[in-house]
Amino acid sequence: MQSLRNKIVEEQGYKAWLQYTLKNDKQKDYYSSYLRVITYHQESEVIDAATKELSRAVKGMLGISPEIKKSSIDEQSEGVLLTLNSHTSKAYQSFNKELDRYQIEQMGKQIIISSNSDKGILYGVFHLLRIIQSDESIEGLLITEKPRNQLRMINQWDNMDGSIERGYAGSSIFYQDNQFIGDEERVEDYARLLSSVGINAISINNVNVHKVETTLITDLLPEVKKTAAIFRKYGITLFLSINYSSPIEIGGLTTADPLDQDVQAWWAEAAKNIYTQIPDFGGFVVKADSEHRPGPFTYGRDHTDGANMLAEALKPHGGIVIWRCFVYNCLQDWRDRKTDRARAAYDHFHPLDGQFADNVILQVKNGPMDFQVREPVSPLIGALKKTNHLLELQVTQEYTGQQKHLCYLVPQWKEVLDFDTYANGEGTEIHNIIAGDVYDYQYSGLAAVSNIGADLNWTGHDLAQANLYGYGRLCWNPTLDMQELTLEWIHQTFGKSDRLVDSLLKIMLQSWETYEKYTAPLGVGWMVNPHHHYGPNVDGYEYSVWGTYHYADRDGVGVDRTMETGTGYTEQYYKPNADIYNSLTKCPDELILFFHHVPYTHQLQSGKTVIQTIYDTHFEGVEDVKALLDEWLSMEGEIDEQRFKAISQRLSDQFEHSKQWRDMINTYFYRKSGIKDEQDRLIY
Amino acid sequence: MQSLRNKIVEEQGYKAWLQYTLKNDKQKDYYSSYLRVITYHQESEVIDAATKELSRAVKGMLGISPEIKKSSIDEQSEGVLLTLNSHTSKAYQSFNKELDRYQIEQMGKQIIISSNSDKGILYGVFHLLRIIQSDESIEGLLITEKPRNQLRMINQWDNMDGSIERGYAGSSIFYQDNQFIGDEERVEDYARLLSSVGINAISINNVNVHKVETTLITDLLPEVKKTAAIFRKYGITLFLSINYSSPIEIGGLTTADPLDQDVQAWWAEAAKNIYTQIPDFGGFVVKADSEHRPGPFTYGRDHTDGANMLAEALKPHGGIVIWRCFVYNCLQDWRDRKTDRARAAYDHFHPLDGQFADNVILQVKNGPMDFQVREPVSPLIGALKKTNHLLELQVTQEYTGQQKHLCYLVPQWKEVLDFDTYANGEGTEIHNIIAGDVYDYQYSGLAAVSNIGADLNWTGHDLAQANLYGYGRLCWNPTLDMQELTLEWIHQTFGKSDRLVDSLLKIMLQSWETYEKYTAPLGVGWMVNPHHHYGPNVDGYEYSVWGTYHYADRDGVGVDRTMETGTGYTEQYYKPNADIYNSLTKCPDELILFFHHVPYTHQLQSGKTVIQTIYDTHFEGVEDVKALLDEWLSMEGEIDEQRFKAISQRLSDQFEHSKQWRDMINTYFYRKSGIKDEQDRLIY
Repeated sequence: MQSLRNKIVEEQGYKAWLQYTLKNDKQKDYYSSYLRVITYHQESEVIDAATKELSRAVKGMLGISPEIKKSSIDEQSEGVLLTLNSHTSKAYQSFNKELDRYQIEQMGKQIIISSNSDKGILYGVFHLLRIIQSDESIEGLLITEKPRNQLRMINQWDNMDGSIERGYAGSSIFYQDNQFIGDEERVEDYARLLSSVGINAISINNVNVHKVETTLITDLLPEVKKTAAIFRKYGITLFLSINYSSPIEIGGLTTADPLDQDVQAWWAEAAKNIYTQIPDFGGFVVKADSEHRPGPFTYGRDHTDGANMLAEALKPHGGIVIWRCFVYNCLQDWRDRKTDRARAAYDHFHPLDGQFADNVILQVKNGPMDFQVREPVSPLIGALKKTNHLLELQVTQEYTGQQKHLCYLVPQWKEVLDFDTYANGEGTEIHNIIAGDVYDYQYSGLAAVSNIGADLNWTGHDLAQANLYGYGRLCWNPTLDMQELTLEWIHQTFGKSDRLVDSLLKIMLQSWETYEKYTAPLGVGWMVNPHHHYGPNVDGYEYSVWGTYHYADRDGVGVDRTMETGTGYTEQYYKPNADIYNSLTKCPDELILFFHHVPYTHQLQSGKTVIQTIYDTHFEGVEDVKALLDEWLSMEGEIDEQRFKAISQRLSDQFEHSKQWRDMINTYFYRKSGIKDEQDRLIY
Repeated sequence: MQSLRNKIVEEQGYKAWLQYTLKNDKQKDYYSSYLRVITYHQESEVIDAATKELSRAVKGMLGISPEIKKSSIDEQSEGVLLTLNSHTSKAYQSFNKELDRYQIEQMGKQIIISSNSDKGILYGVFHLLRIIQSDESIEGLLITEKPRNQLRMINQWDNMDGSIERGYAGSSIFYQDNQFIGDEERVEDYARLLSSVGINAISINNVNVHKVETTLITDLLPEVKKTAAIFRKYGITLFLSINYSSPIEIGGLTTADPLDQDVQAWWAEAAKNIYTQIPDFGGFVVKADSEHRPGPFTYGRDHTDGANMLAEALKPHGGIVIWRCFVYNCLQDWRDRKTDRARAAYDHFHPLDGQFADNVILQVKNGPMDFQVREPVSPLIGALKKTNHLLELQVTQEYTGQQKHLCYLVPQWKEVLDFDTYANGEGTEIHNIIAGDVYDYQYSGLAAVSNIGADLNWTGHDLAQANLYGYGRLCWNPTLDMQELTLEWIHQTFGKSDRLVDSLLKIMLQSWETYEKYTAPLGVGWMVNPHHHYGPNVDGYEYSVWGTYHYADRDGVGVDRTMETGTGYTEQYYKPNADIYNSLTKCPDELILFFHHVPYTHQLQSGKTVIQTIYDTHFEGVEDVKALLDEWLSMEGEIDEQRFKAISQRLSDQFEHSKQWRDMINTYFYRKSGIKDEQDRLIY
């Protein structure tokens, strides 16, 4: 078992961006002079984790075992010194950005990492290791950092049977056969990855809470406690997704009505029990009244009733309720062209702004639909002025190729984060709102659905690791330059060979645009196979109950969401966004079919017609994948064989599958429109 | 447990057409005079089953317990006498129609049921009970019957995990959690139902043989033996579906090559072991080289190699190999319009005619595709002149509403059976071929996929029981008048009230046409949701690997299977069928899109255009369902409440769902063609 374990951790895919590759002799000498000794002033399990990480990294990169010692401030003279500015470290769940702040300073042969909390020290250590992994200089280091965002969360959609909803990298690392696996080393390695990019919160079970998972807050608490202990060492606070009907399903009550006193008492008692076992428990993540999940609507109550009741139960213990805004009518009639799912989150939650308790946070998906390759930004985010909220992203590639296709999502997320809502006049970008710089929220930040599973390389596609890395780094600092962020990841994950870095950077940064080109065109979305959401199916959701339509007929395509003739969705935006999206001529090309129903012959701002754009992008998309594959194949020798081969295979499969996409989309629109490709390329 | 059991068997749905309802006093007196005594001359377990059935029926219908006695011929003077013409009853697997022959004769106060075999006596008993259940007269009875078809088989597609592939009536009655359930009473009741309509063979596991099921022929034999014993009592021979790769998967060999001596020896030994346990074992049902199942192709061998090798292993024991012809390329490229799945069975098997061993039977689906609501008859059936074969029907309603919709399939099957292939000149109907009247086959007959499951009423929809009944009766006599056959079933299942009989007969006989009207039009098929095959999805299979396309574009729709410009499938038929199907003007309207790609404006023989026919039939179909529902609802009081309500609910759901079908199909074609409905009805 241990030998298998050793073998696993030696896999380069497994190490992800914490490779700690052996340096050359010159580098070894240079860095060793700073890293022979690790001294810490105060004791805590987080500081212990920090020294262990540092020690592991030094062994890996420099081939030496550093001396680790506890000492008073004055004795320190060389090596790395870890020191707390004060001893007032608070409970983790307080999510205080000032406590996360750290400083790294080179003084003589010393590198001093200081912070107001042990978590900050751990972040500082990971920062230092990033610098060393990237072969950067130690001289003159004086870095002070604090995160822009307070909550930096990961949501696991793991079920206890071992499956992962929308998981594309094997089964769960947490559960199997309705039990905790108890592989503490694997969970700890995941905690290391998350902590190294600054993640400070995790919910460990699917938001769709099934039967067994409902008992995580009761019978299974001892196991949850063990898992919390692992994450705690890495400064990560544990949350659980709960079943809103718990009082009925496991509490023996006949109702889950939030205004019922027995229900309130049941939740209060449940919370008390949890905090007895896990004093720094984060709180509950709740998907209620959404896609057939139970919720307060059953009892004629609204979201505030539901969320505030849970918040009340958690409040005495410092806990938080994270209430998802993914609420819409999922039994829509496709014949009804007035109801618009895009409107749903805003229509449901905007009227409730200001009515939620202080320890409730709404979690809002980045777009109004559901993690499509291209959507406008959700208008709800700027509109919640008096309600804590999180921006929800999806790291797992549900609609973006499921880690079989390469789709680096940082460029998409940057567009979202940089989007100016004009909520408070020009310059009210999303990243400013969620950082709490525009309105004074008690809590705010980001959450995202994880993309990891039990696959040895965590993410199925080795390059999909970049999405997890990028998400964490953007949580910490959403204004990070995209290219720099990507280079950081490449350097740590694959090294610094110029040939490799240039090619890989190009591949990564282009991949989202490429994926968009050969899939659903011009922002229309949803042309995927139902249920599993992989592969093209133009009408897959066209006649469904899910509110996801493109309305393509022989004359045109797209959804009219304008104020005058459509669903009026555009009015949910602040001006000038509302006007831009509402206008057929001003609406950005890439979103034209999201906002407008247009003839195939409609001329875009690019000068091309809609139909010719569809053809062109789909032919281009496949060519781009081919170029990307060739670029990758040209790197043979620059990358270890195992990862090179695995990635080559995925890119090659992507190339084949992109042709399916191209031909299916082009054929569909050619058969419907009857308009020939100007370049007379092969359409079936 | 026993009280639950008693409750179950009292459910009217459970009793299906073996209701044995208490008669009125006059009838009681009348029938009792013939049924107070049951005498049998020879002992056998089948005769025992026959006397028990008779006794049970008499108790139910007449409220008396008949005296049962064994006696010599001369002593008999009143009551039912069961007597074998001779003692030469052969093993069941011989499938000899002469042994199935029986006679029922009224002589004074005696009813004499005689046969050459105990099975024949059992059939005679069920026939007598059918007469009494239908309130018919005993006087003057002199019936001699023998089946037209030799093999009258049911295929269970049950998996050992308890699921049923294409099952719509609950889980398996045989298996659960990879074990035999061992509910002998339930299995026996199923055997009674099957035997009552003359079924004489059953395969008890899915043709897709998974891991556990592979061991049915080895480790699980003791359990199979128990099941065989139950069916044996009712004259039903048990078969198993086998995994062609068994020698590898459970035999420890490295190959399953049919020409490999070790493989041959392995199968011979396996067969020997089976027959040691089950001396009258029927043989193997084999799905090989079909939809990813293993087969001889892997080893560069053909179907004759594969089937004959198994036949050789079974031959010493009198066993049979039933080899399915459902072989086609299931990884087709939708862009390739030359490959035609419809051609596949003929192209694969016709060249092999005459090369199969005597104890191999090919099993050919009724149509060239896969149990669509409307297909032409498979051209392979008339074309196999020197090869034993079975016509395969599907009683389970995979593509015909899944027992949520009412779709009585007897009308469809009658069309198939009455189809004149012209294989041997005019008058070479399918029913003559499979009866062995045209060519001299060693074995022939019918097989069909069952529609039963663990639901209390066996078939989910109570009225779907009629399909199982009708299948069995048509196996026995394919020339049975459809209306009479249906009346038989109605009388036994629901009684003889005029009001009820007229309405129900109308409902049943119209239901297939109605289903056809609101689903995929004009023989084109396949406009269903992939995988589960329920509900409309026009493009569901259009861009798939399954060879199932309609090629609808803005101008027209349909598959060109003509000789001149299409796939040439029409030439697989004998003249004049080949010419009729090949001709755009002669091809029957209901199959036009199966054989031709036509403009929406193409005028059918009916005088209507294709597009207007699509609209009209879809509007009509829904109106028909409404009429059918109303007709049913008008019968309240004529039927027990439990079945009345259950059926009302299903019909009501069907009505709602038929609107989905109507609107989705009409909208799809309206959006594509842009041609308005002449009657300007609502199309979305």
